[in-house]
Amino acid sequence: MPTGFSFQLKTADGTVRLGVANTPHGVFHTPAFMPVGTSGAVKAMTADNLEECGAEIILGNTYHLYLRPGEKLIREKGGLAKFTSWNKPTLTDSGGFQVFSMQDLSKVDDDGATFRSHHDGSLHRFNAEKVIEIERDIGADIIMSFDQCVPYPSDRRTVSDSVRRTYDWAQKGLEYFNRIEAAQPSGIALFGIVQGSIVEEFRKISAEQITGINFPGYAIGGLAVGENKEEMENTLAYTIQFLPADRPRYLMGVGYPEDILMAVSYGIDMFDCVLPTRNARTGMVFTSQGPLVFRNADSADDDRPLDINCDCRVCKRYSRAYIRHLYNQREITALVLATYHSTYFFQNLMRGIRLALMENRFEQFRRKFMEKYSERE
Amino acid sequence: MPTGFSFQLKTADGTVRLGVANTPHGVFHTPAFMPVGTSGAVKAMTADNLEECGAEIILGNTYHLYLRPGEKLIREKGGLAKFTSWNKPTLTDSGGFQVFSMQDLSKVDDDGATFRSHHDGSLHRFNAEKVIEIERDIGADIIMSFDQCVPYPSDRRTVSDSVRRTYDWAQKGLEYFNRIEAAQPSGIALFGIVQGSIVEEFRKISAEQITGINFPGYAIGGLAVGENKEEMENTLAYTIQFLPADRPRYLMGVGYPEDILMAVSYGIDMFDCVLPTRNARTGMVFTSQGPLVFRNADSADDDRPLDINCDCRVCKRYSRAYIRHLYNQREITALVLATYHSTYFFQNLMRGIRLALMENRFEQFRRKFMEKYSERE
Repeated sequence: MPTGFSFQLKTADGTVRLGVANTPHGVFHTPAFMPVGTSGAVKAMTADNLEECGAEIILGNTYHLYLRPGEKLIREKGGLAKFTSWNKPTLTDSGGFQVFSMQDLSKVDDDGATFRSHHDGSLHRFNAEKVIEIERDIGADIIMSFDQCVPYPSDRRTVSDSVRRTYDWAQKGLEYFNRIEAAQPSGIALFGIVQGSIVEEFRKISAEQITGINFPGYAIGGLAVGENKEEMENTLAYTIQFLPADRPRYLMGVGYPEDILMAVSYGIDMFDCVLPTRNARTGMVFTSQGPLVFRNADSADDDRPLDINCDCRVCKRYSRAYIRHLYNQREITALVLATYHSTYFFQNLMRGIRLALMENRFEQFRRKFMEKYSERE
Repeated sequence: MPTGFSFQLKTADGTVRLGVANTPHGVFHTPAFMPVGTSGAVKAMTADNLEECGAEIILGNTYHLYLRPGEKLIREKGGLAKFTSWNKPTLTDSGGFQVFSMQDLSKVDDDGATFRSHHDGSLHRFNAEKVIEIERDIGADIIMSFDQCVPYPSDRRTVSDSVRRTYDWAQKGLEYFNRIEAAQPSGIALFGIVQGSIVEEFRKISAEQITGINFPGYAIGGLAVGENKEEMENTLAYTIQFLPADRPRYLMGVGYPEDILMAVSYGIDMFDCVLPTRNARTGMVFTSQGPLVFRNADSADDDRPLDINCDCRVCKRYSRAYIRHLYNQREITALVLATYHSTYFFQNLMRGIRLALMENRFEQFRRKFMEKYSERE
């Protein structure tokens, strides 16, 4: 039987936490930021690049991988980590967020969701069991329960329905998962997801329901979908009190560096977000002095690296003027360089956070980071 | 005064030649294949990637760099090698080929060419002196005389005119170049270009005219523009006899691996071509067993690397099935991986050629390479 999932807290200084997770494909340290590898690659990055940047776990999107190349092919090829040659820990989301974000193409009912492929318009159906089956075939180390993520804002009825369905699907999914695992142990860990929009009443219900099921880890879903930063923080602060301290806590789809620091301060262990990679492809990188829109004319004559305080491969070698020129010529190389830097920047932030946690100086680290981050020259 | 250009033949086994060129930005070994970095980057490659692949000299396109970011900016930034952080030898073409290949946007007369920018339609003028001025500002180690490249096929009058103009521009360009160099020595080498389409009579005239001017290196232009392989070989074999043995010989825009081996057998020292990089972006790579259209369904389930005999970073790690999947998802990473392999493949071919030349077994190397190259499983 493969080594299963386990999670150890190394230190917990008040609410902030430093940990390490063991998975069938190796360990990752928390707080962890997972670059998003939608279709099995972090856009414009190679696995070598990701290793250099210090990423330890990558997220894949179940919705995308199910449609192309299909979970059966990935399974035949030994699972996501092997198929992509990443060979390290991976996590797949449940597809619930994609179904939510492509509302024109999908319809949710109590039993699941019917949606059309964005490739060819073909009709597909996800439900609790089907998603688990697909995720097991894809074979990430951590897989997520099928959930319903609702838009912001949503009315009470919509939130209430989504909380009920998310609970129902979590139970059905886990039951199905346990049945397969009993026959074919894989070492994969299935996490539960708490929903409830920004409504405390529903967050409490959802958190109590989902944590009432024995998952090895819990995610807070349904945030970073349009609510403001105060609403996000309030909802997170409220919800996290219901999550057991001994299990990893994953804040889905977050976020900006300031959001990550905020969430770590409440005890979040895992993050994922497309921001560093997506923004890089639109001409913006994250730097120690705040976001830099390097495609702008300001950079045309600028000999400095993207981030003057960064020691990544890109900042050690290339100037803003050069990268800006390439970006404006639509050169792929510009996207490669910018994505690399921002990926490194986020991993470096997480390394800084983990070291500060280790040394019991997280709040000092956060304050200093934010001071510099707001000082864009 | 900067170290100037020099070229030494290490061995010349009959007509085949092994050499080394010294430039202000370092040495490169010949026969050399120059990846094409049109706008200051080899598409989808970083300078780090190019170094890993073993490239020693990169080509930039004067036409593109003149329009964006402009030769003045590149000059301010210390020249092409410094601006791009490549920091090794570079060569710029004359812009003549671009003017030729964008006939709808350009008009050639005895004094030069007027053309419209493909960016914004603005009107520009190149002539012998202007091109030298631009190329000196861009600051490559080797720059090319402004020439007129004619389409294949062309009538006698067109070829005759182009040969006359190419000679006239070579003289004017060199005179202008020598005048500037006398005042501000740069170490840059200006090469002459022989034209004449596939007509022996005109190739002889052009070769005698251009070699009658004392250039430190000579290029054969106007091939690989649509003529068949026999016409290319015959023209090359005929023309090269007029080129002095002690100067580097550059066959512009060539080519396929089999063309490179053919041309080396006649004594060509330098090559450039967009084939490895452009084809990679359309789903085709070069391998030791011949071209592989990896985007095809054949590769969907194929666990083998792009090239089973290749030890590049990509072939050591990734499968055809994975790269094909990424390509079909339009993932930038697929273009990065395929371009890297094909760039490595061409540099590896040149290393093989140079080693074979060193060991006096070039024809054996060529025969073995071609046997394997034709055996596509």
